[in-house]
Amino acid sequence: MAKVEEKAKAGTGSLTVVGLGPGEAHWLTPAAQAVLDAASDLVGYGPYLDRIAAREGQTKHASDNRVEIDRAGHALRLAAEGKTVAVVSGGDPGVFAMAAAVFEALEAGDPAWRSLPITVEPGITAMLASAAKAGAPLGGDFCAISLSDNLKPWEVVTARLEAVLAADFVICLYNPISKARPWQLREALELAARHRSAQTPVIFARAVGRADEGLRILTLAEAVEAAASADMATLVTIGASSTRLIARGEERPWVYTPRSVTKSPSATSQGRT
Amino acid sequence: MAKVEEKAKAGTGSLTVVGLGPGEAHWLTPAAQAVLDAASDLVGYGPYLDRIAAREGQTKHASDNRVEIDRAGHALRLAAEGKTVAVVSGGDPGVFAMAAAVFEALEAGDPAWRSLPITVEPGITAMLASAAKAGAPLGGDFCAISLSDNLKPWEVVTARLEAVLAADFVICLYNPISKARPWQLREALELAARHRSAQTPVIFARAVGRADEGLRILTLAEAVEAAASADMATLVTIGASSTRLIARGEERPWVYTPRSVTKSPSATSQGRT
Repeated sequence: MAKVEEKAKAGTGSLTVVGLGPGEAHWLTPAAQAVLDAASDLVGYGPYLDRIAAREGQTKHASDNRVEIDRAGHALRLAAEGKTVAVVSGGDPGVFAMAAAVFEALEAGDPAWRSLPITVEPGITAMLASAAKAGAPLGGDFCAISLSDNLKPWEVVTARLEAVLAADFVICLYNPISKARPWQLREALELAARHRSAQTPVIFARAVGRADEGLRILTLAEAVEAAASADMATLVTIGASSTRLIARGEERPWVYTPRSVTKSPSATSQGRT
Repeated sequence: MAKVEEKAKAGTGSLTVVGLGPGEAHWLTPAAQAVLDAASDLVGYGPYLDRIAAREGQTKHASDNRVEIDRAGHALRLAAEGKTVAVVSGGDPGVFAMAAAVFEALEAGDPAWRSLPITVEPGITAMLASAAKAGAPLGGDFCAISLSDNLKPWEVVTARLEAVLAADFVICLYNPISKARPWQLREALELAARHRSAQTPVIFARAVGRADEGLRILTLAEAVEAAASADMATLVTIGASSTRLIARGEERPWVYTPRSVTKSPSATSQGRT
């Protein structure tokens, strides 16, 4: 009977996975703001929910950062009960955030959930915000890798790093370091140093768009030594072989990657199949 | 004398490279809107400028899409003359758009330009918008590659594709096809088909966020045959080996990439150095 009622009400509920962007309200899209305004229930990691001024009648469901799949299931149940649910992510919900967890929970859960209206509302992800502050480091081909080995073997991470280092991509590292994963970032940067010049620009962008924002432009050699100074709120960008600085006196230099590739020995040496 | 005047005025001018997002106004960030409102001069590709309702006193400088570096130099000269310049890009300006061209022009141009206040204002890039519409295809590690060989040899493109195919990244292809480059997308997809199952989900997302939006979920085998139906406004996403569909009756299936990697034979076979 409870099951029948739940299904009967499913037609009125909905779930939107919404990206808050990197922090500043002026980076929250109007579409994302509208989702937050319309929600009856806000589900997410506590610090993200804290950034939202809840209106009267809205319920916040805060949870720990490491239980994404439980949070996703909870949000789907609320939607199935008829709630207008917003699942909030920092940055973009599709980039190492809640959207994939919601679809995992959807796939594994009550088949009735599949008829729920689900929407994903994009946001500015950290690598775009970091790049904008630094100049144009993503001017060429680039990739995004989560350094967390909670969800994949470290050997997969290093094999992927090897591949994109050899092929000369700009590399953005999400989740670079945590108390439980203290050594991975240094190992990744050491691996990079075996492929790229010690002078390659590396950007440590911490909490871009928030009050405690910090952006550091380092050489790869410096970055290896500074790895332990990064934290979970840091987005690390490793330049390609062509990534360069434009000095401007006392101010922080610009970092950019030219659009053109004239030669790329390490990439072309792999040949064509 | 003209030079001296230009330098004297440089203190009052500024240049911001601003991302309009994928099209819909509700994806334009408040920060980007503020830049457009404050600009005395708007510089960009005609169709992007057409999306902006210019206010009185604002000058639009439209140019062809293929002369980014000239447009960037023009914008820097206007800023040096004291104008408040907004250089507009679709999507995010740092992703295969105007930001890198501006820094190239800055590096090669009048040294006085380096004291100009330059800002890059991020936007929602096409791969995030496309992913959000499709579900969560970027749930794992992913990369962005421009298929255009105007600025890099095709051998570099294919070497990069080989690398990320072997290492099992989700792959987003920008600039997949044009009248001058009719065959590259099909070749790229054929290359993918040598690494990944014929059933791998491929997304053709055309003009997401615009009136003529179209989203197609294909298998890789279908995508090879459909390559010629893509155009410059299409963002192509090739799933990783784990990318999957969630059926939902008559509606378009969801596409998502699980966050976890349990095994990845092709990636791990490369071993560690």
